[in-house]
Amino acid sequence: MKTIEKTTCTVLSAGGVTTAQGFKATGLHSGIKKKRKDLGLLVSAVPAVAAGVFTTNLVRAACVTQNEAQLLAQPYLQAIVVNSGNANACTGVQGDQDAKTMRAETAKALGLADDAVAIASTGVIGVPLPMAPLLAGIGQAATTLAQAGGDFFAEAMLTTDTGKKEVAVQLLLDGVTVTIGGAAKGSGMIHPNMATMLAFVTTDAAVEPAALKRLLSRTTDQTYNRITVDGDTSTNDMVLVLANGMAGNDTLDETHPQWTEFADAFRYVSEKLAKDIARDGEGATKLLEVVVNSAPTEGIASVIAKSVIGSSLVKTAVFGADANWGRILAAAGYSGAQFDPNLLDIYIGSVQVAQNGMGLVFDEETAREYLLGDHVVLTVNLNQGEETASAYGCDLTYDYVRINASYRT
Amino acid sequence: MKTIEKTTCTVLSAGGVTTAQGFKATGLHSGIKKKRKDLGLLVSAVPAVAAGVFTTNLVRAACVTQNEAQLLAQPYLQAIVVNSGNANACTGVQGDQDAKTMRAETAKALGLADDAVAIASTGVIGVPLPMAPLLAGIGQAATTLAQAGGDFFAEAMLTTDTGKKEVAVQLLLDGVTVTIGGAAKGSGMIHPNMATMLAFVTTDAAVEPAALKRLLSRTTDQTYNRITVDGDTSTNDMVLVLANGMAGNDTLDETHPQWTEFADAFRYVSEKLAKDIARDGEGATKLLEVVVNSAPTEGIASVIAKSVIGSSLVKTAVFGADANWGRILAAAGYSGAQFDPNLLDIYIGSVQVAQNGMGLVFDEETAREYLLGDHVVLTVNLNQGEETASAYGCDLTYDYVRINASYRT
Repeated sequence: MKTIEKTTCTVLSAGGVTTAQGFKATGLHSGIKKKRKDLGLLVSAVPAVAAGVFTTNLVRAACVTQNEAQLLAQPYLQAIVVNSGNANACTGVQGDQDAKTMRAETAKALGLADDAVAIASTGVIGVPLPMAPLLAGIGQAATTLAQAGGDFFAEAMLTTDTGKKEVAVQLLLDGVTVTIGGAAKGSGMIHPNMATMLAFVTTDAAVEPAALKRLLSRTTDQTYNRITVDGDTSTNDMVLVLANGMAGNDTLDETHPQWTEFADAFRYVSEKLAKDIARDGEGATKLLEVVVNSAPTEGIASVIAKSVIGSSLVKTAVFGADANWGRILAAAGYSGAQFDPNLLDIYIGSVQVAQNGMGLVFDEETAREYLLGDHVVLTVNLNQGEETASAYGCDLTYDYVRINASYRT
Repeated sequence: MKTIEKTTCTVLSAGGVTTAQGFKATGLHSGIKKKRKDLGLLVSAVPAVAAGVFTTNLVRAACVTQNEAQLLAQPYLQAIVVNSGNANACTGVQGDQDAKTMRAETAKALGLADDAVAIASTGVIGVPLPMAPLLAGIGQAATTLAQAGGDFFAEAMLTTDTGKKEVAVQLLLDGVTVTIGGAAKGSGMIHPNMATMLAFVTTDAAVEPAALKRLLSRTTDQTYNRITVDGDTSTNDMVLVLANGMAGNDTLDETHPQWTEFADAFRYVSEKLAKDIARDGEGATKLLEVVVNSAPTEGIASVIAKSVIGSSLVKTAVFGADANWGRILAAAGYSGAQFDPNLLDIYIGSVQVAQNGMGLVFDEETAREYLLGDHVVLTVNLNQGEETASAYGCDLTYDYVRINASYRT
């Protein structure tokens, strides 16, 4: 697995969904939320090749169902409209109709065909979408699009997130500069596979549609589907990627000599957004990363990493800076993966706490100091193979309980 | 599914593992814990038919492995020794040896063969069992066994539990009174299948060994495996049942005309203990019960009930008395079960909050009042079949985080 450090792309010090050529965006307060921005609009100057991945929840919001059907019919998009504050999920026939209206009115305001527009909603479930403020907001947004509007767009997506999640990278392909940027939101109901998680990635690269779809699918498996905040999978999650080709590179697919470089850069953007979501999990005080090494298969490594990252007992122990490694071993054990627990070593940061499945005498104070940091890496070496996988999450805190005990009120 | 009200057995106002004829027990402080009782001993006057179910965690404590092997070899036991404060898990070869010594010394003190004794440990993982106080305690316990000692035994099993979990019932079989009693402990790392959960059930009924095993297995699926506190499955869980035959009934198996009555009474005992564990989940303020009705199969009903009971978002909403039914629907949706979400109705207590997969206008204040109670029932009617299943859990609270952020310290 490639790590960030090995990626050859250049990470820009600032940037997001409008850093790539030809993308404009905006974000504003339409009135769905009380005060904060709640409506974002992102538009490409030309039609873009598009791909999407969507929640696996059987209960799916209208925006998810409609976008998926639309991308199956034709893999092109030119705009994304997103609202926060209301998920338009479990809202029945009215919800379907409202989603269609949201799409149609956006298309109309931009002079596009309906099926050039993707829609996304996030927020409370089961309450009808307030259409009057939403539609007025769409009209206003269409007139305020700007290349500098990426930040506003990223802000307008947020629900209980404490901050924007944006990233942009550049690399040279065929001698031209290609940019990939993205914006995402978390931060509760986050769990593989997908969650109340929205991520939108834009690039000016030219990419062949089927190759873009395969790349998104594989990358999602290794990034967005490796993050857990609370084990809940939402009704509204999606990742959309738009590639408008304005950089002027030769169209990319897996046979292009620089495909791997592009795929790595795309992965960097996705991993950065995924980690930012995990770090900003509801109530989180730190980013928690679980690395499983020397596994027989990547599948086994991934199942164990996801099990440990999802353990409430591990998460509370990390919050309390308690080096309770037995919980890590227990979570590996109930993951469902087959392995020999008697070969397993565990590290908290660089402090080895278990060897061959048993506890070591270790410096509790050093481990505690490390656990007090804002990025905690727990490493499990299975010592029964060559494969590796990581998962990302956060600690479980009083604030998670506070936030979720009264989300609607 | 039988509910408690339909059971024909008599629930005794007090009672536990020593209520059935021929059982004595004790519990004392041996010195594994700082102050509280940490060693329990339960003995039958005669060899008892025995059956057990054990954690599905790949990482299993020595007590689990050894008991399972022993019961496979011969389904009889005469004593159970249990310590709390130390799980003797992830303790390697030394842990195996310590478990054997714990068993052998108990057998010696009681004048029994080693394989007539089952052992159980619960508490912190990865720390060697303090053998000196344990063995001294075993010697002392063997001299203080009493018919009145069931309460002490139930107390000695506890870890972060806030109270004892005991029950006893009686019924007439073949014209003689048969008693079934039990004791259990929770209360973190509780999740299907099994958890840091110990339950010991004793009866003076005569039961055929294979029938007892089948009954325990089926009942465990419908009771202990339906409770969730935090989604973590422990290394040490077990349920053991001892049937010593001293009531003098004809030996029971599925062909006995009163088998169903016995099975229902056994299930009552198990369900009572399971609910008590859920109600006393770490930090819990209330018992949460999820009932899924009108499902195509019991399997589907059970998968959905377990998914809803395990949702951190549902659990925090219940803690906050917030009638956020969208989270119930979302948890049903990501359960993995196949159903049509558009047919589904949801009730919080008797307040219907959703119909045909959509929200209803309901009296928020009535729902809130109900959610403030100490026993909350959430009902999901799928309206696509005849089958029913329940799951039991608790709310997710600040105290869960507090308890688990500093368990070892």
